[in-house]
Amino acid sequence: MAAGTTDNLSVVLHGPGDLRLENYPIREPGPNEVQLKMHSVGICGSDVHYWQHGRIGDFVVKKPMVLGHEASGTVVKVGASVKHLLPGDRVAIEPGVPRELDEFCKTGRYNLSPTIFFCATPPDDGNLSRFYNHNADFCYKLPHNVTFEEGALIEPLSVGLYACRRGEVTLGSRVLVCGADMISSRLEKAKECGATLTLQVNKESPQEVASKIESLLGNKPDITIECSGAQSSIQTGIYATRSGGTVVLVGIGNEMATVPLVHAAVREVDLRGVFRYCNTWPLAISMLASKLVNVKPLVTHRFPLEKAHEAFEVSSKGIGLKVMLKCDPNDQNP
Amino acid sequence: MAAGTTDNLSVVLHGPGDLRLENYPIREPGPNEVQLKMHSVGICGSDVHYWQHGRIGDFVVKKPMVLGHEASGTVVKVGASVKHLLPGDRVAIEPGVPRELDEFCKTGRYNLSPTIFFCATPPDDGNLSRFYNHNADFCYKLPHNVTFEEGALIEPLSVGLYACRRGEVTLGSRVLVCGADMISSRLEKAKECGATLTLQVNKESPQEVASKIESLLGNKPDITIECSGAQSSIQTGIYATRSGGTVVLVGIGNEMATVPLVHAAVREVDLRGVFRYCNTWPLAISMLASKLVNVKPLVTHRFPLEKAHEAFEVSSKGIGLKVMLKCDPNDQNP
Amino acid sequence: MAAGTTDNLSVVLHGPGDLRLENYPIREPGPNEVQLKMHSVGICGSDVHYWQHGRIGDFVVKKPMVLGHEASGTVVKVGASVKHLLPGDRVAIEPGVPRELDEFCKTGRYNLSPTIFFCATPPDDGNLSRFYNHNADFCYKLPHNVTFEEGALIEPLSVGLYACRRGEVTLGSRVLVCGADMISSRLEKAKECGATLTLQVNKESPQEVASKIESLLGNKPDITIECSGAQSSIQTGIYATRSGGTVVLVGIGNEMATVPLVHAAVREVDLRGVFRYCNTWPLAISMLASKLVNVKPLVTHRFPLEKAHEAFEVSSKGIGLKVMLKCDPNDQNP
Amino acid sequence: MAAGTTDNLSVVLHGPGDLRLENYPIREPGPNEVQLKMHSVGICGSDVHYWQHGRIGDFVVKKPMVLGHEASGTVVKVGASVKHLLPGDRVAIEPGVPRELDEFCKTGRYNLSPTIFFCATPPDDGNLSRFYNHNADFCYKLPHNVTFEEGALIEPLSVGLYACRRGEVTLGSRVLVCGADMISSRLEKAKECGATLTLQVNKESPQEVASKIESLLGNKPDITIECSGAQSSIQTGIYATRSGGTVVLVGIGNEMATVPLVHAAVREVDLRGVFRYCNTWPLAISMLASKLVNVKPLVTHRFPLEKAHEAFEVSSKGIGLKVMLKCDPNDQNP
Repeated sequence: MAAGTTDNLSVVLHGPGDLRLENYPIREPGPNEVQLKMHSVGICGSDVHYWQHGRIGDFVVKKPMVLGHEASGTVVKVGASVKHLLPGDRVAIEPGVPRELDEFCKTGRYNLSPTIFFCATPPDDGNLSRFYNHNADFCYKLPHNVTFEEGALIEPLSVGLYACRRGEVTLGSRVLVCGADMISSRLEKAKECGATLTLQVNKESPQEVASKIESLLGNKPDITIECSGAQSSIQTGIYATRSGGTVVLVGIGNEMATVPLVHAAVREVDLRGVFRYCNTWPLAISMLASKLVNVKPLVTHRFPLEKAHEAFEVSSKGIGLKVMLKCDPNDQNP
Repeated sequence: MAAGTTDNLSVVLHGPGDLRLENYPIREPGPNEVQLKMHSVGICGSDVHYWQHGRIGDFVVKKPMVLGHEASGTVVKVGASVKHLLPGDRVAIEPGVPRELDEFCKTGRYNLSPTIFFCATPPDDGNLSRFYNHNADFCYKLPHNVTFEEGALIEPLSVGLYACRRGEVTLGSRVLVCGADMISSRLEKAKECGATLTLQVNKESPQEVASKIESLLGNKPDITIECSGAQSSIQTGIYATRSGGTVVLVGIGNEMATVPLVHAAVREVDLRGVFRYCNTWPLAISMLASKLVNVKPLVTHRFPLEKAHEAFEVSSKGIGLKVMLKCDPNDQNP
Repeated sequence: MAAGTTDNLSVVLHGPGDLRLENYPIREPGPNEVQLKMHSVGICGSDVHYWQHGRIGDFVVKKPMVLGHEASGTVVKVGASVKHLLPGDRVAIEPGVPRELDEFCKTGRYNLSPTIFFCATPPDDGNLSRFYNHNADFCYKLPHNVTFEEGALIEPLSVGLYACRRGEVTLGSRVLVCGADMISSRLEKAKECGATLTLQVNKESPQEVASKIESLLGNKPDITIECSGAQSSIQTGIYATRSGGTVVLVGIGNEMATVPLVHAAVREVDLRGVFRYCNTWPLAISMLASKLVNVKPLVTHRFPLEKAHEAFEVSSKGIGLKVMLKCDPNDQNP
Repeated sequence: MAAGTTDNLSVVLHGPGDLRLENYPIREPGPNEVQLKMHSVGICGSDVHYWQHGRIGDFVVKKPMVLGHEASGTVVKVGASVKHLLPGDRVAIEPGVPRELDEFCKTGRYNLSPTIFFCATPPDDGNLSRFYNHNADFCYKLPHNVTFEEGALIEPLSVGLYACRRGEVTLGSRVLVCGADMISSRLEKAKECGATLTLQVNKESPQEVASKIESLLGNKPDITIECSGAQSSIQTGIYATRSGGTVVLVGIGNEMATVPLVHAAVREVDLRGVFRYCNTWPLAISMLASKLVNVKPLVTHRFPLEKAHEAFEVSSKGIGLKVMLKCDPNDQNP
């Protein structure tokens, strides 16, 4: 056990609604692992969903599982083969670690590997703990001007970055983001965060919304990033996107969706989904270090690890935006 | 009028079911045009559909229109600016010619240009005539070892080549082609033409078909080219394609389709449509010249231009495969 | 002739050192052309070079040629086929216009078309005039918040944007720009314009410079954009770029260069050149309109068209940065 | 030790010219390894070079090293974590295995990983032995209709496949391969293996050769694959390739090369090197299984493992093409 702490308090889910704070054993890091003293872990919608329902789709919590996968901490021990990290290094944690060098991994799409380890996706433990061991190749050193909380927020930021990559968003791309369109407070937040224009959707048909968007922008967007998963919103995305463009499907809705596929096909509007992300941490760190993106305002609540129940309650009520759990009793700073 | 012929017999559609053989005027080629003595023109399903219904979707025949767009012929006159062609050159005709250098054309996707000219799509005349003028940049010289009929067949071949390009089919790709799957005679033809394996679909569910395909191949195909437009077949394509792969939508079905979009999205199976083709003629000529593909067996019927009515009857009955009209009274060879 | 002006004063090069202000005839715009009342035209290094030497490489001024290709103006007449522009529209002019829809143009690389028209590249006239006709498809409407001078500066901006595109520069890319490295005042300007770090090169070997760059950045850059054309700088680029990265060759040096090609090859550092640009005007306008880039400080001198000789003298002396000629006697604003 | 054999005869290089047949210990496979009974191992030019010189560039044989990296064999034992292979499986061996999931590996370019393991590159042992342990993820099951020797030849085939991938060779690409151009017997072999045309080079300048190639083909090739490493041949490749095309640098010549870089740059002819290969085994197996490529005629000599010295002598004399060592005393078939 690392010096200066006597426990490994962990947030463990035993079943629907059954969240417990337990003192988990700390094991030695393997040859390619580092042991981390955890600092900040954000609560994700999926953590809340597992807590409430004990499952997400086919992923079922069948045995106690530590929650948490938006995380950062400090290296306290390094395995024998680890070369690029030292005790004392502050790192952000990429929660998905491929277990095999299969065809997906070899071709740079390791997020699609069916045997991938992923923090807090059953049966794999997450990192809402005092201490946690992780594959060193998936721990990324934080520059001095990036905080632990920014490090933890790389995980949700990665979803956006990866969606942009899948959509081939580049300098000058005209991008439509669907998904905050029915709630005016969220639209205002979007505008604060850099949206050029926002449009609140009420009862218009998808074609009508697409037509409004074209009028607002003066042309059709090149790329639509659909974040709600709602069928009507996917339809809007297809109608709204210019010929030769792309609709990126980020939101997850019902299993089957009825969409104007011919309209997409004959205009060569491609539909591309995303599964989590890959190869985003170095990019995110570079963006945070150079202040190209500001994620700090997203954290609206902080709780010490001991108050995890309260934190999950707040998060589940949709009050504020991101709830951050502070795992280090000696450092509760951002 | 070109030497040695006294008429410009043309196959003109006046409305649903009203196909007439008329002597059309021959105009001088414009500065960037060539005048062609037509040789071979294939009848396409769309020609037959216009003849029977007077429309395809929003494209309505409102004034008399010459049919035909799968064509080849011989240059007889060249416009003042034409440099790469001479009278006597045998050429294949790409029927789509952009009218403006708009953003689609400038970026190499001229097939998406909304103002494109396209043979036998109303209101643009096709080339089922004795003589026809076309933009010289869209006439491609045929090598001596490629016949006129092969030249005419480049148009349907281009649909396949372009679908492969959209699906990024390359050496070693495992490709599933859906669309001939319910008719055993077509499956046999597919096998003759190079298919490794075929599977006849009866009443199985899309998931069951996908599962059969995986068993047959030993793994999931990288790319599915869906040519039927049937909803069940699109569903099969999504279930069958491996994670990270692509479903190319070639077939056109109903406006709305109900599909397992989440299943595609979270496995990053992309859906990409095709609209006609672009940049395929040089590739097709190169393939035909080097005997990489054999399209000759596809021509099952030939009629002189004067017997166009009979040819359309045969084509509409689905007897055989490709019906070819021979426009040159002095050369009815392939 | 357009209303309100009685002359078409033009800056005409007759031979080395022989620059004349002449009243050129104004012809009617062709069907796909617009007639422009010119507003602002920047002087490029190539204009100065033609003036001084009468040639650049194989391009020789054999007959009088109007100079100028960094330009913007106002539409005063539109040809019969022009649909997207109206008199009164303020536009930026892309100087390269393909004459044929050849294989380069059809595949979106029209800058490589060997028969392309290009302003002020012999024998094609440029637009340092009161009035000028240009292909309407290569005139791009300026939004109200983009000035004429910004419009004229899109041409040099395009060189940079296109180099970035060839190098696949994207969000988070670590980019090394070589070419201002020996002159401290330019390095300071680079820093003002957004460079994170600068390095002045003196007498170090290319390997030493590469090593210093890696030390400065903490890692090797992903992409090097080489703008000097100097052999030592190209060598530096190859040594400095990380494995799997790209060196973009923008600067033009001697015909033959001695470079560590094996070092590039076995580390898969690609070498990619640029020839002018293509498909950059819409992107540049979008960036200028949204204030993503600020080119205004680059204009250090302005002269009315009548004082072209003086303007060329200033430009040739390397005083300041960009010299702008103001073609409209009634509006000399930026 | 595996049943039925009592030794692990291995071909071990102790220093320049000092090749010994030794009985090496057999260790148990690690959790992610398989133990292979070796069948066929081809002798590569690099094996011969190490034997003769004890080094290739910076790679120096400092301690005894087993040679061989073009190999196939049969699984005899599997490590605890191996799921996709079973004893009895016939496999081809990819000799490069990344040791870390670094940025190169994560993005699908594991061949560039600086810490990669590679058979018979010092200090890593190769597989010219009776028995050999290898990472199971880099052993690929051979279909019943692919022989062991074909499996061993996947390694040299991969160099070609990967060069084609780097050059984006696809259906219809016009490809120039430089490197056999001075030896008539090799040019004849090339023609047997599918080359459309060959050209023997004597004393012509690179520009003259390029010009001859264009005359022969009727146009410039899209892609040049340069396999000699000779400066004159690289120059030829640059002059010969069409604007917008690519020269792939496969051959390794002198450290510095003098090339017409401006000519490449302003025509946007890209230069791309290759370092070994990645992600080629599944493609190669698929091509071999479907008879798209025939590598069998390349094997001209076979020796039992015991006669390794004789085999190396033959290989070093350039007699024939590929010399194959047969490691299994009970099965010396192809």
